[in-house]
Amino acid sequence: MEPAAAVKAGNVKVTFLPKETSTRVPAGTTLFHAAAWTGQPIESTCGGRGTCGKCRVQVIEGSAPVGPADLQHLAQEDIACGWRLSCQLEVRDEMVVQVPRLLSTPKTAMFGVGRQVLLDPNVHKVHLHLAEPTLHDQRPDLLRLREALRQEGFAMRADLAVVRTLPKALRDAGFEVTAVLCGEDLVAVEPGDTTGACFGIAFDLGTTTIVGTLMDLNSGEARGVVSTLNAQAIHGGDVLSRISHTMGKKEGLHEMQHFAAFTINGLIERLTSESGVPPEQIYEITVAGNLTMMHLLLGIDPEPIAVTPFAPAVAHGMDLRARDIGITIHPEGRAFLFPAIGAYVGGDIVAGLLATALPRGNKLRLFVDVGTNGEIALGSEPRTLATAAPAGPAFEGAEISCGMRATTGAIEGVQITENTVVLQTIDDAPPAGLCGSGLIDAVAQLYRRGLMDATGRMRSAEELAGRIPGSLASRLVGVEGVRAFVLATEEETGGRRILFSQKDVRQLQFAKGSIASGIRILMKEMGVTPDDLQEVLLAGAFGSYIHPDAARMIGLVPAVPLSRIRAVGNAAGEGAKIALLSYREREAAEVMPSRVEYIELSGRADFNDIFMGVLGFPPLDSLP
Amino acid sequence: MEPAAAVKAGNVKVTFLPKETSTRVPAGTTLFHAAAWTGQPIESTCGGRGTCGKCRVQVIEGSAPVGPADLQHLAQEDIACGWRLSCQLEVRDEMVVQVPRLLSTPKTAMFGVGRQVLLDPNVHKVHLHLAEPTLHDQRPDLLRLREALRQEGFAMRADLAVVRTLPKALRDAGFEVTAVLCGEDLVAVEPGDTTGACFGIAFDLGTTTIVGTLMDLNSGEARGVVSTLNAQAIHGGDVLSRISHTMGKKEGLHEMQHFAAFTINGLIERLTSESGVPPEQIYEITVAGNLTMMHLLLGIDPEPIAVTPFAPAVAHGMDLRARDIGITIHPEGRAFLFPAIGAYVGGDIVAGLLATALPRGNKLRLFVDVGTNGEIALGSEPRTLATAAPAGPAFEGAEISCGMRATTGAIEGVQITENTVVLQTIDDAPPAGLCGSGLIDAVAQLYRRGLMDATGRMRSAEELAGRIPGSLASRLVGVEGVRAFVLATEEETGGRRILFSQKDVRQLQFAKGSIASGIRILMKEMGVTPDDLQEVLLAGAFGSYIHPDAARMIGLVPAVPLSRIRAVGNAAGEGAKIALLSYREREAAEVMPSRVEYIELSGRADFNDIFMGVLGFPPLDSLP
Repeated sequence: MEPAAAVKAGNVKVTFLPKETSTRVPAGTTLFHAAAWTGQPIESTCGGRGTCGKCRVQVIEGSAPVGPADLQHLAQEDIACGWRLSCQLEVRDEMVVQVPRLLSTPKTAMFGVGRQVLLDPNVHKVHLHLAEPTLHDQRPDLLRLREALRQEGFAMRADLAVVRTLPKALRDAGFEVTAVLCGEDLVAVEPGDTTGACFGIAFDLGTTTIVGTLMDLNSGEARGVVSTLNAQAIHGGDVLSRISHTMGKKEGLHEMQHFAAFTINGLIERLTSESGVPPEQIYEITVAGNLTMMHLLLGIDPEPIAVTPFAPAVAHGMDLRARDIGITIHPEGRAFLFPAIGAYVGGDIVAGLLATALPRGNKLRLFVDVGTNGEIALGSEPRTLATAAPAGPAFEGAEISCGMRATTGAIEGVQITENTVVLQTIDDAPPAGLCGSGLIDAVAQLYRRGLMDATGRMRSAEELAGRIPGSLASRLVGVEGVRAFVLATEEETGGRRILFSQKDVRQLQFAKGSIASGIRILMKEMGVTPDDLQEVLLAGAFGSYIHPDAARMIGLVPAVPLSRIRAVGNAAGEGAKIALLSYREREAAEVMPSRVEYIELSGRADFNDIFMGVLGFPPLDSLP
Repeated sequence: MEPAAAVKAGNVKVTFLPKETSTRVPAGTTLFHAAAWTGQPIESTCGGRGTCGKCRVQVIEGSAPVGPADLQHLAQEDIACGWRLSCQLEVRDEMVVQVPRLLSTPKTAMFGVGRQVLLDPNVHKVHLHLAEPTLHDQRPDLLRLREALRQEGFAMRADLAVVRTLPKALRDAGFEVTAVLCGEDLVAVEPGDTTGACFGIAFDLGTTTIVGTLMDLNSGEARGVVSTLNAQAIHGGDVLSRISHTMGKKEGLHEMQHFAAFTINGLIERLTSESGVPPEQIYEITVAGNLTMMHLLLGIDPEPIAVTPFAPAVAHGMDLRARDIGITIHPEGRAFLFPAIGAYVGGDIVAGLLATALPRGNKLRLFVDVGTNGEIALGSEPRTLATAAPAGPAFEGAEISCGMRATTGAIEGVQITENTVVLQTIDDAPPAGLCGSGLIDAVAQLYRRGLMDATGRMRSAEELAGRIPGSLASRLVGVEGVRAFVLATEEETGGRRILFSQKDVRQLQFAKGSIASGIRILMKEMGVTPDDLQEVLLAGAFGSYIHPDAARMIGLVPAVPLSRIRAVGNAAGEGAKIALLSYREREAAEVMPSRVEYIELSGRADFNDIFMGVLGFPPLDSLP
């Protein structure tokens, strides 16, 4: 959506010593923010606002004009040696800077895909002994508080609602208070020292499922995880049905907003009652979700997302009062919503890219989140591309004759041995149907065992006569003139037999073909081959269940060695936690849409050719 | 409240050519804002945000580092000749700059005390033809709008409430819209070209009376003026009784906030129905009132204002959504509330100082607003002092035996001729009592005619026997052992006679003595004598009715030639209008508390001596 490519053209290289990490950033980016992007930690308490004076670095190469904050915080001789506040110095031309070692070893925690995250939340609690007013010091309460915070290195702004609480809060507490800041926003003034209690919740707001994790912002530890179905689901399983509900009746949008907030509030209630942490000590939430979920949560009409040319109302990261979207934490608590890269590459993917650090790493990696839409990103620090490919509902078991959702009895694994079929079902219940991962397995196994050719055509028992045992041959049947494979007989299910038909194979081929096309197009744009891919990351709940060899065998992912394919679990949820625990990481998320080039597949002249080319399956002997 | 004196110490001189206007500003102030303070107009459409590139000036003396916006907007050869964007260049050391002539003659209007104000409101309407989205331009609506506004030189931020309206607003209007900005805040996106209709209301929020003026922001003309009593008055006439109501019962503050908004909304209804301008075309209001009125309107506990050491919750200027304080204009319209200089030198005085430009002018002037409190300012461009002196209710006719409010029948003028008394009453009705201006006249006339000595002691008929005609002597009476003067006999009133007693004179002496002490103390701090005062400005409704000679005769104002005493009317209301019509003037109001030194009278060791010295009246022959 942002013309990232155009921005890129003007980017400037910055190298941080002694680690020699480097990145290219748009001219005008501060050194501090460039460092946050690379993950290079720089000392700071104010978060890059020029107030704490701690983020000094030494400029080795590149222009470095002296700013007013430098004069205020640095000694003349240091300035003469090239020391500057990194949060004030904007990158204009190629730069090399030396970053001093951190004064103390910061708290860190492991999140996402092996990411060591500096514990440095956006929420700050600052304990203050304010001077009491006298006739010689009649400063207004707000100014008194602001100046005390400035002394501690924090900038502050306050909404009317918080100012209203000030006179009583300060006087009742004898002017000894704890100020709670979310970024620069003053959210509370609490009596005494309350720095010990500071919490936030990270939400993965999925179309189907919503997961919330209560985080202790002092320790970085999770204090509870809960999940539930999105209450919006009564109006349809996918984003398009949700959007059409807002179009169908006048109050539809309002209702959808309410359902989203209602579900989230339910999770908050469970987290607070189970942990004993009161809602008033939860000062911030982060929310990662696709762009439709974001629009619905914000109460913004999502209709333009559903129709070409897919220009949404808003796609940047949002920082707003949680209660403005009906969410019940501290009354003045904040909500951060992840930005989106495109109409169908939303905040969940940005969070996933944050958790994997794909656009900031050295390795060339492919990220695939398989669902109704396949969201794909490809790249590394110098350049990252992203796109979305519509896959339809096949991977969710819909429009598959024996398909079902991934619940009890769903076949999630299929193995066709020499002479029989071994099924793995959810909860080890008798098989009831195929869910997405079972579907992929089934096709891969049929293909591997030669029961299907590389075009996806099922072979008949006659065609295979003598080449397979009778126990398998008997499973190749015809139903109303359509070929099918008996995954489970009546004896095996204890009820109806489960048939997997030629039609089902075609549905899967369309779904995986669309995603594979998206991958191909990104690889073509980037000019790389499967050999160049150092890692293929399968994200999302579904990604955790897919068998990598099956995914590769059906051509859903490129033909790379199996060791390079990795399930990364709920990367969106991990990204939401990371953004809660580190404002530097959050800033990396906020600029991500400008650092990742969005490729629109609709209307591409080469799409159909590429799609036809990947509908079939790769030659079995081609897999490394 | 702000340590203005300390700030002053670091101030730096800036001179603007060719007019050679100059000012001293705190280091770090931009040239653009320094120019706004002096009233020097500089071309600009973005209001000093670095986006329009029009505010170029040529630096003749002083350091002028080149900033990124300079590189973007100015040619290299111009930069080499010292041209810079004045809104980006912060004053660090003494500077002389050349300001180019304005490209076109700007609209101006006369306001306040002969002030020619540049018509440049904070509200901007920008008519835009946006590019419609395509598959090659999928920018989100908000970004699309922001970039179009940036092209026109405007920066923009948008609240969730406005973003919610965007998808429909843009699409219904075929992407031809008018964006309404208050400063950087996007308040509306209207279909087509609505630039012709743009209104605001300036409020003078008095403790007693609220006045609203509907202004056409395109022409600068008033479209209507209405006033009414402040509904809060049922809980007392002065600020202290209003404050004690908020302390008396739990819902008192809420009620006071409601009354303030209710009264203002009533005026808005009258203005809109009388003018035919719908409330949706009113995008902004400005409100000038004392600090207690501001706290009550904001719903902030004012109690600390009433008790020593008088440290309020907040005193800076506020820019907020009108509906957040219950005021009904455009749903997203803004309200600007004037800052205060001290707990009892409020936004009404800041507005008055804006209207008179006292702290920004060349002449040494004294500003006095007489009421329950006397607010006093003294100074000119290099230095201005302000204070508040508690006068009690005498000037409002309270605690005076024959006192009354300034309504029908109140004596507003008194003249004691050779042998009789000539009264001037409101509406020429039969005299019913004395209001403030009549009170001052009465005392002055008694003193001038020798019926009272310079200590305020009334003389008896016996004492004056033979020196005054019997017609006057008969008016000197004694009532229960207290001397009194018959202002109006029973025949003259057609009812009770109106007596003005020795006790009343004492009440007036205490009231005027307090204000005169405040004036003395400011003059002492400034090191000036009455001869140095080039003008004495009497402000407020009351100030318009006082006879300058009487005020001088009783020693309420210093003994300056009468020609130097000037009533300036409702200066607060004028200031509110000016702030509505010119954001540059508004900025001058916002920085005024940091440019005016507040002098606290409570607890001053010299107050009592000075007070005793001014209780009496100046020798008649001493008046110039």
